[in-house]
Amino acid sequence: MKIKRYQKKYDFSYALGTYPVIDLLNYRANEIITIFIKSTADSSEGVKEVKRLCKEKGISLNVSDRSIEKIAVKENTYVMGVFRKYDTELEEGNHLVLIEPRNMGNIGTIIRTMLGFSFKNLVLIGSSADIFDPMVVRSTMGALFRINFKHYNTIQQYMSGYPKYNLYPFMLEGAKDIREVEFKEPFSIVQGNESRGLDSSFKDIGQSVYIPHSEDIDSLNLAIATSIGLWEASRRK
Amino acid sequence: MKIKRYQKKYDFSYALGTYPVIDLLNYRANEIITIFIKSTADSSEGVKEVKRLCKEKGISLNVSDRSIEKIAVKENTYVMGVFRKYDTELEEGNHLVLIEPRNMGNIGTIIRTMLGFSFKNLVLIGSSADIFDPMVVRSTMGALFRINFKHYNTIQQYMSGYPKYNLYPFMLEGAKDIREVEFKEPFSIVQGNESRGLDSSFKDIGQSVYIPHSEDIDSLNLAIATSIGLWEASRRK
Repeated sequence: MKIKRYQKKYDFSYALGTYPVIDLLNYRANEIITIFIKSTADSSEGVKEVKRLCKEKGISLNVSDRSIEKIAVKENTYVMGVFRKYDTELEEGNHLVLIEPRNMGNIGTIIRTMLGFSFKNLVLIGSSADIFDPMVVRSTMGALFRINFKHYNTIQQYMSGYPKYNLYPFMLEGAKDIREVEFKEPFSIVQGNESRGLDSSFKDIGQSVYIPHSEDIDSLNLAIATSIGLWEASRRK
Repeated sequence: MKIKRYQKKYDFSYALGTYPVIDLLNYRANEIITIFIKSTADSSEGVKEVKRLCKEKGISLNVSDRSIEKIAVKENTYVMGVFRKYDTELEEGNHLVLIEPRNMGNIGTIIRTMLGFSFKNLVLIGSSADIFDPMVVRSTMGALFRINFKHYNTIQQYMSGYPKYNLYPFMLEGAKDIREVEFKEPFSIVQGNESRGLDSSFKDIGQSVYIPHSEDIDSLNLAIATSIGLWEASRRK
């Protein structure tokens, strides 16, 4: 296949780096189109594992420095997976719901954190940043391939799909200090967009929550507020 | 003065954006060389406040679109402060200690979070990313100007300067679950570098701490782990 610089409109994307590709091979092998490896790749444990998994799963492994160099920003990228974009269904367990997140670095960091705190279901509402952008894939360090995610146009559509979930919208003017919140399963942590947060209508969809902070800052960064929410919900167990 | 693209070796730097410049004017006015404003700047509350503060403090305000366009990446930057790099002393209160942090986005996010949780003293050990890089300044959203920070070459030098501080190094193999840690004031939260964390010698400098997470990820992102540490220390109050 012809390797072209990634665009959102494509139905495929790239996973760069040995460990993200190992996760791709382990968790989303059915979506793999092909794997590229550089001629200069050493025989580190990671590279060996890529080769073993490709063989085991019958996936083509192509040596091509140029293909990788066309896409990778970092010089020391030796392995690249090309995969079809895919949809997943959510599985049992709690949800993280992000409303129109725009910053790819934030989304990547959040996906890695949610997996760290055993949240495996991500819901994206409205027009969010492209979850398959190679930058997001890379910043999740492979975690993207281990979680489930689903898009909805509106929070109402999501809510009617999951009527039993207790919603906890995080808002600067939330009604309850996060330290006093009991997260009743199954639940959804709901976070607004980087610049606007959640508007006041979200107060009515569930138990609104605030993270107390000093008046020296307007708000916490989205990835930080979300991670503290995920941590607080998991620290109670 | 001639405006040139920022370099680490310069003894001055730039604060971009209305609100970071307001913080610069309020907290580090003595370090300001000059303020630039675009001819197209509207008369929003923020811009009015910049003008008022410049007048009050006798700081020159120059209209120059070109100066700002040379430095700013974002088109909608209307105000830029040029300031001398400065040193500060630490003040009373707890410390955040970062060992050789490299990622500027991480440092910016961490500075904003520490201020949010009322930590006002940042210690940087060894060769860290440039805290005055305009990218860091911008990502702190002005918080940089409200905190104190100090560089040390080694953790030993820092420790001999602050012998009464109780150290809490954060490590994957920390001895105590963060939920069980009592942070005894005055204390220092110590975080390692993005890729290496802290080596095992740090276990002996204080009460080592770990943040429990699933085995699905190797580690939390530095900004996330640090923010959870700051939050946990402040949530106990």
